Amino acid sequence: MKQEETLREDVAAGRNAVMELLRSGKEIDAVYVRQGPAEGSLKAILAKARERGVAVKQVSAEKLDQLSGGVNHQGVAAVLSAAEYVSLEEILDRAQAAGHPPFLVLCDEIQDPHNLGAILRTAEACGVDGVILPKRRSAGLTQTVYKTSAGAAAVVPVCRVNNLAQTVRSLKKQGVFFYCAQMGGTDWCQVDYSGGACLIVGNEGKGVNRLLLEEADVLVGLPMLGQVNSLNASVAAGVLLYEMTRQRLGKTAKNPGAK
Amino acid sequence: MKQEETLREDVAAGRNAVMELLRSGKEIDAVYVRQGPAEGSLKAILAKARERGVAVKQVSAEKLDQLSGGVNHQGVAAVLSAAEYVSLEEILDRAQAAGHPPFLVLCDEIQDPHNLGAILRTAEACGVDGVILPKRRSAGLTQTVYKTSAGAAAVVPVCRVNNLAQTVRSLKKQGVFFYCAQMGGTDWCQVDYSGGACLIVGNEGKGVNRLLLEEADVLVGLPMLGQVNSLNASVAAGVLLYEMTRQRLGKTAKNPGAK
Repeated sequence: MKQEETLREDVAAGRNAVMELLRSGKEIDAVYVRQGPAEGSLKAILAKARERGVAVKQVSAEKLDQLSGGVNHQGVAAVLSAAEYVSLEEILDRAQAAGHPPFLVLCDEIQDPHNLGAILRTAEACGVDGVILPKRRSAGLTQTVYKTSAGAAAVVPVCRVNNLAQTVRSLKKQGVFFYCAQMGGTDWCQVDYSGGACLIVGNEGKGVNRLLLEEADVLVGLPMLGQVNSLNASVAAGVLLYEMTRQRLGKTAKNPGAK
Repeated sequence: MKQEETLREDVAAGRNAVMELLRSGKEIDAVYVRQGPAEGSLKAILAKARERGVAVKQVSAEKLDQLSGGVNHQGVAAVLSAAEYVSLEEILDRAQAAGHPPFLVLCDEIQDPHNLGAILRTAEACGVDGVILPKRRSAGLTQTVYKTSAGAAAVVPVCRVNNLAQTVRSLKKQGVFFYCAQMGGTDWCQVDYSGGACLIVGNEGKGVNRLLLEEADVLVGLPMLGQVNSLNASVAAGVLLYEMTRQRLGKTAKNPGAK
């Protein structure tokens, strides 16, 4: 039974198509390659991807079949970015130009494109200077993310880095404080976020990586008054980003007993 | 080409199966029926659904085919609830038993099960007494909602009502104040949520219905510092529910200039 060929507009499948795309200079979210040793023209494709700094993801044959929508993919496909990535330096320059301490979000391996889209949308609404993603094991700026973000993915600067822990350490030296939601942390509304601030958002299932948790300056707690012990990643990010925004805007909150 | 038969565990398809399910007394999320006039045994099914107060949704043949996963559905299918609905009275009783003014969420036609799941999860974490959904044009307590809610859908009381505006008017008479996110509203952190409080959450695309907007006691504004002019429905709900929770718990927020 031949599957109907319905190649997504943002996908290139097959060795020639992917190589052509890599040579074109267009922004590529990731190259997907079948698990196992690469041979022949596949080697050249992987070398070209490395040269351009494009993320390469090893996936199952089923995942490739699904991505390629029935087109003969010859073990390789590539997904175009819906928006361009910037460098971390550009993000920091943007904060400096705006005359405020950097306001950043770091997503630790967010897998669900709907979550990443919602986070980018909130980050943009809060005036975040930029969002940091890891090159591996993270959703990228795909069409789904772009749509879920209501277009914010093309507005808020997003950078990708090879090593999140290294990036955190480097930013800490530049005066950025790292905040991370964690059960038992300091009440979210009692933490001071007024300086250079970066919110670490954890993976949907595993939470925040231990190495990153250890680097965080403040663990922030949200009340969990029921039986569930965590929130959806984009909801938790939203609650904390708006508390950070409130403080950064110098907005007074209504306190108990106050008139 | 015959499609493989893969009927979801929580779906009954075909007239006998649906009628049997209706007679069983099991909690049913909705009966889905093909658009057009009902005849024969379909009439009896619709009458039984009405008698039991089960929501009936007219859908396209394609939607039915998809729900039924290739099983011959004869124009009708039913989806089981992953959790039981309660009555509005039970929700109000629960608040009274807890000795606090009611804390409620009203979802105005939330369509996306992932959004509804995330809202239920946040509501449960915030100790909300109950969530109100309309019987029509809303996602229900399906398996997807249950999963996305991390199980909260089976813990937080959820009721369904025929007429949201009527419910709002009735609750207002009982001292519940209604809050609704709206551009240009009062700063979210300056609103007093300390009494009986219900957050109205709008539909993903259309926002909150005009009739409900008119009934709201306070329109609440969130800063939108970038180019997008709204947040994901579950994120906006999360930000407001946590500000309401902060005030209800009597937690002091760090204010600018305060030590």
